[in-house]
Amino acid sequence: MKSHRKELWFHVPTRRAFVNMTRQVEDALKESGIQEGLVLVNAMHITASVFINDDERGLHHDYDVWLEKLAPHEPVSQYRHNVGEDNADAHMKRQIMGREVVVAVTGGKLDLGPWEQIFYGEFDGRRRKRVLIKIIGE
Amino acid sequence: MKSHRKELWFHVPTRRAFVNMTRQVEDALKESGIQEGLVLVNAMHITASVFINDDERGLHHDYDVWLEKLAPHEPVSQYRHNVGEDNADAHMKRQIMGREVVVAVTGGKLDLGPWEQIFYGEFDGRRRKRVLIKIIGE
Amino acid sequence: MKSHRKELWFHVPTRRAFVNMTRQVEDALKESGIQEGLVLVNAMHITASVFINDDERGLHHDYDVWLEKLAPHEPVSQYRHNVGEDNADAHMKRQIMGREVVVAVTGGKLDLGPWEQIFYGEFDGRRRKRVLIKIIGE
Repeated sequence: MKSHRKELWFHVPTRRAFVNMTRQVEDALKESGIQEGLVLVNAMHITASVFINDDERGLHHDYDVWLEKLAPHEPVSQYRHNVGEDNADAHMKRQIMGREVVVAVTGGKLDLGPWEQIFYGEFDGRRRKRVLIKIIGE
Repeated sequence: MKSHRKELWFHVPTRRAFVNMTRQVEDALKESGIQEGLVLVNAMHITASVFINDDERGLHHDYDVWLEKLAPHEPVSQYRHNVGEDNADAHMKRQIMGREVVVAVTGGKLDLGPWEQIFYGEFDGRRRKRVLIKIIGE
Repeated sequence: MKSHRKELWFHVPTRRAFVNMTRQVEDALKESGIQEGLVLVNAMHITASVFINDDERGLHHDYDVWLEKLAPHEPVSQYRHNVGEDNADAHMKRQIMGREVVVAVTGGKLDLGPWEQIFYGEFDGRRRKRVLIKIIGE
């Protein structure tokens, strides 16, 4: 069994954003030389997500409005977590969108459906954060 | 390390439905001959889910009502994604229910709790869609 | 490829609670002797979650209030699942928080970000329930 580990860094200038990182995961897979196996891609921070969905700007706008409705940022004082912080809502948004994805590796490639793209979801940005890629297989 | 890949096809005649596919995942595991490892089961489409919960009709009704409350289909015009489409809500419902499950393989069997069943969750049906099963282990 | 399996038991005296089990997962990893691979940690019950987030009491209070808002326990009669049961809301809360986490193993350790902690999320407690840990790698 082979394994490969890589960190990606993101620095989103806004509080919230969705960043397509499919290409970077493909690059990590090529570096690994693994042909059959599994890729884990996870946020290493607890106010960010890794998820798979469509790379469509209208949908990303809809996600942002929807998450803000389900877990509003304001008023900040509604959350007990917000003592010296203001990111409680980001911890909630991240639970809805998820921490991680696991993707099959087949024939040396990410075994994704036709519209599947891997995203970094930032809910408390304006600082550097990491995503972990771990690939195991043969 | 061994690996096995299989696709399942679903064609749900309604917009939304939950389909128990535990048996098909067990069949794929038997075909693989793998005794110890992990099974990844994921929707290959971004308006569908794979999740684990109870095979109980009342609960599935409750899930449908609940998801429709959290991410309503109508009015279709509330979503920017719905330009020539009407499935933005399906992209949201799928994030709540999840894209994938990872299940342990122990002694050649799916290592599930007593009530755990694996479901395909369709939120934009009436066409053919795929689920990917990838098993790795020994 | 090596594999290791362990069950953890939880008996939460209240209906809902969040329990940090990072230490127990680390112990299971040490027992396995696995240096590089993946750990799956999943609830074996369908009204409980395994998730990764912050070990901060205020946040856990916020999660509890928030989940109760998105999927209220009362009135129990609003759910068709609640025929002889009263835990339909627990099946919903668990979908938002998730069934499982997959964590990378690197150099014999859980490859977690600085604030990542692994939690058992109970939504229908006052009885014994299990979590499954499955580790594969080398």
